[in-house]
Amino acid sequence: MNRFLTLRDLSTMKIERLVARARHIEHWSMAHSLIGKVVTLLFLEPSHRTLASFQAGIAQLGGASIVLSSGQGKWGIETRDGPSKDGDPEEHIRDTIPVLEEYGDALGVRCGSRGSSLADDLAEPWLGVIDSLARKPLINLGSAMDHPCQALADWKTLDDEEIPRDGKFVLSWAWHPRPQPLALPATAAAMAARRGMKVTVLRPEGFGFPAELRSRIIAEAKRGGGTFEETDDRVGALAGARVVYAESWGAPATIHSPARDSNLRAPQRAWRIEPSWLESTEDAIVMHCLPARREIQIAETVLDGPRSRATRQAVNRLHVQKAVLLAMLGSDMV
Amino acid sequence: MNRFLTLRDLSTMKIERLVARARHIEHWSMAHSLIGKVVTLLFLEPSHRTLASFQAGIAQLGGASIVLSSGQGKWGIETRDGPSKDGDPEEHIRDTIPVLEEYGDALGVRCGSRGSSLADDLAEPWLGVIDSLARKPLINLGSAMDHPCQALADWKTLDDEEIPRDGKFVLSWAWHPRPQPLALPATAAAMAARRGMKVTVLRPEGFGFPAELRSRIIAEAKRGGGTFEETDDRVGALAGARVVYAESWGAPATIHSPARDSNLRAPQRAWRIEPSWLESTEDAIVMHCLPARREIQIAETVLDGPRSRATRQAVNRLHVQKAVLLAMLGSDMV
Amino acid sequence: MNRFLTLRDLSTMKIERLVARARHIEHWSMAHSLIGKVVTLLFLEPSHRTLASFQAGIAQLGGASIVLSSGQGKWGIETRDGPSKDGDPEEHIRDTIPVLEEYGDALGVRCGSRGSSLADDLAEPWLGVIDSLARKPLINLGSAMDHPCQALADWKTLDDEEIPRDGKFVLSWAWHPRPQPLALPATAAAMAARRGMKVTVLRPEGFGFPAELRSRIIAEAKRGGGTFEETDDRVGALAGARVVYAESWGAPATIHSPARDSNLRAPQRAWRIEPSWLESTEDAIVMHCLPARREIQIAETVLDGPRSRATRQAVNRLHVQKAVLLAMLGSDMV
Repeated sequence: MNRFLTLRDLSTMKIERLVARARHIEHWSMAHSLIGKVVTLLFLEPSHRTLASFQAGIAQLGGASIVLSSGQGKWGIETRDGPSKDGDPEEHIRDTIPVLEEYGDALGVRCGSRGSSLADDLAEPWLGVIDSLARKPLINLGSAMDHPCQALADWKTLDDEEIPRDGKFVLSWAWHPRPQPLALPATAAAMAARRGMKVTVLRPEGFGFPAELRSRIIAEAKRGGGTFEETDDRVGALAGARVVYAESWGAPATIHSPARDSNLRAPQRAWRIEPSWLESTEDAIVMHCLPARREIQIAETVLDGPRSRATRQAVNRLHVQKAVLLAMLGSDMV
Repeated sequence: MNRFLTLRDLSTMKIERLVARARHIEHWSMAHSLIGKVVTLLFLEPSHRTLASFQAGIAQLGGASIVLSSGQGKWGIETRDGPSKDGDPEEHIRDTIPVLEEYGDALGVRCGSRGSSLADDLAEPWLGVIDSLARKPLINLGSAMDHPCQALADWKTLDDEEIPRDGKFVLSWAWHPRPQPLALPATAAAMAARRGMKVTVLRPEGFGFPAELRSRIIAEAKRGGGTFEETDDRVGALAGARVVYAESWGAPATIHSPARDSNLRAPQRAWRIEPSWLESTEDAIVMHCLPARREIQIAETVLDGPRSRATRQAVNRLHVQKAVLLAMLGSDMV
Repeated sequence: MNRFLTLRDLSTMKIERLVARARHIEHWSMAHSLIGKVVTLLFLEPSHRTLASFQAGIAQLGGASIVLSSGQGKWGIETRDGPSKDGDPEEHIRDTIPVLEEYGDALGVRCGSRGSSLADDLAEPWLGVIDSLARKPLINLGSAMDHPCQALADWKTLDDEEIPRDGKFVLSWAWHPRPQPLALPATAAAMAARRGMKVTVLRPEGFGFPAELRSRIIAEAKRGGGTFEETDDRVGALAGARVVYAESWGAPATIHSPARDSNLRAPQRAWRIEPSWLESTEDAIVMHCLPARREIQIAETVLDGPRSRATRQAVNRLHVQKAVLLAMLGSDMV
């Protein structure tokens, strides 16, 4: 495996093998698998859970990691096409990647969103440029529209909990003081659809997924045997749910205009996951990919309660990422 | 050993065993003791000597460390109780700790002071929350009122120098442009009292330790056979001293009000450790836990002179911390 | 070898042995050479290519690195002589170095320029202080006037390309929105002169090297059998060149006065390396030590074209630095 950029690029069999491998890794030490290997982690935006889980996993496999974080000190990386501007970034990503990939054996990049437009986020030219420049194994550590490490961890969490492949998966919007990117909700919905689940996105009017994203998820549902729908009917959505997954995202129409977005979100401030929400579900587990805004996105009694699998999801990041690293750099025949 | 939060929690025998272990480690390589172990270091405030000594020590024992620093980039951790505010921190410590501790084998946290009130600093609710959340070994890398790694390093330094257990230990206040936390002076005084020393805190009027802190140190003196007193009489304090330990701290009444504190400290600007101070001592060594404000807290001829043990104290950080790590993660029966 | 501060301190035979060692290392894994060794990397200014190449190289040799970066969070290091000011830095380099060097086996320091005066840059008192304080192996990771790691990587690149020892080496100034330090152009010119090359510095009037720097390079040319000249005649300079090395630097007279410098540079905005420049050369390779301002310093068709060796230079950083580390810490008899 030379690329791990989105689950959409992988066959369902490959996904299942990676999850199975992660379950094995969880229980068996493999401290010598990556001896002598160096993995370079480039963060164009900070992400400390990703940083910690990759550094820990690489070390536990016997390898070494090097970390570069943009935005610390005066350093920055220009990612826009065309000539460098006279602005701050001294370096262009076209020069960074070919060198970094020569220093190590694999490259992980957190590129996030450029924050310019939804069309840009959907096209992910930034990730595309990095993909075109790197010849060695490349891992997407979180981009404008995808987070395959989280998707694989969530898939494993659903398997760990023996949630039926065709169970009902409710992705609920939750209020947040700022418009959040679409990457994580898009990733969770596509993952569940691909796993074969009945995916319902529960959100206020105006916060529906953009058409192109909806098409992508429906395509994943077709491949996996799942379904996809969106609604603002909370009662109907929650009835019979096996999973309630809490996420916040900005309204697609205003996601890069915080001021306009603020007006749109203001009336929804009370929209948060409450204990009462779970009553009509079928013993649903509650998922959240963290970090959480406690009491704002989700009641603490839910997040800290017996149905919550938030910590479990984060811990599974460690296990699935080790499986991905072994598939790329080890002798694994995944 | 599962906790290293303050020397007050340890028996004197345990402290002595850790120091003895550190003296052994100083002279013998133990490069395989922590192979396969991962120690997570979480810095809620920066501390580069702590960072460097832990990273080096862990590597020298064959283990790996991962480092997370709050305050770099846009990331932050909320530590206040109650619901997350709408402010900057995206993450709550209640979600951070359970995940981080699953990624590694032990956790070190530098939490410092919240800077809100002296009562808060004395109660250390922040450290208490982390303690309640972590099941794996936990090391205090410096909190509002304690710094057990520094205490153990200082204890070893006193032993290295063969300073008598009942010798006179003078902790002298020194001027500093800003009000400094009480953690380090409190730690040094309690350590020396516990070791059985005659502790004298030499400080201007208004800079006496708060009552609760004084009680704690007196309790330590009782356990260790030492004594504790405070004075502003420099001549009396220094006579016969075996140790002069330089520290700066804010006046307890104004420590979290820099403007008020500034007025209180202004008349004391000349209060710094001078060569002449050592004349009436009994060949006292001079201690300073670094970083030092040269010529402001202490004359350079003293800090760089033959009586200074400041570098030695910092180097002992490395050795005692390795002893603590081995007691927690190795096969040591300390 | 206990010091790697400038190529000027090394015999030509030693330089050649290091390059030969680097060529060997490039093709053979030496994963056990530095097991148990800790290298401390102190960045008083950020440099991410240096950070990445050292971290990767140390890991590939089996050692561990610890990284301290000034300027992150509230931490800083005072390097001026005399008493600490009341300003931000809590720590003086005189206290930092003796401790850091005890924690590890070797020390690398990126000290850059103080930015105060050209005389200061030329004298490098900062590097001198660190040199006087460290007893263990010390590597200059980039100072005000020197960058020996880049010099050695460039030397290896010239050897890799079989550029004749007496070939023509043109170091061309290029426009940049800000006045850049003299360290890299000075290093490249001195390296080429020492290698025996015919060095021509092509730059606008007002951007000639300061007299003391010129003397240094001429001395290197004498040792190596090369020559040194400066000119603003592009046609004459490029004719017959084997190497065109692109660099930007501030006018020595105004380098620490950005406003004055800006006026001086403004008329030269069009001075960038163009494809047409290569026509009269003898199949010259194009060098650039990165980061590059694309289309501003150099045309993208040149930087990304077949003559460019910019990535190769950066990759050679890895190999030569491993040779230096082995010469200092390994069993190499270089």
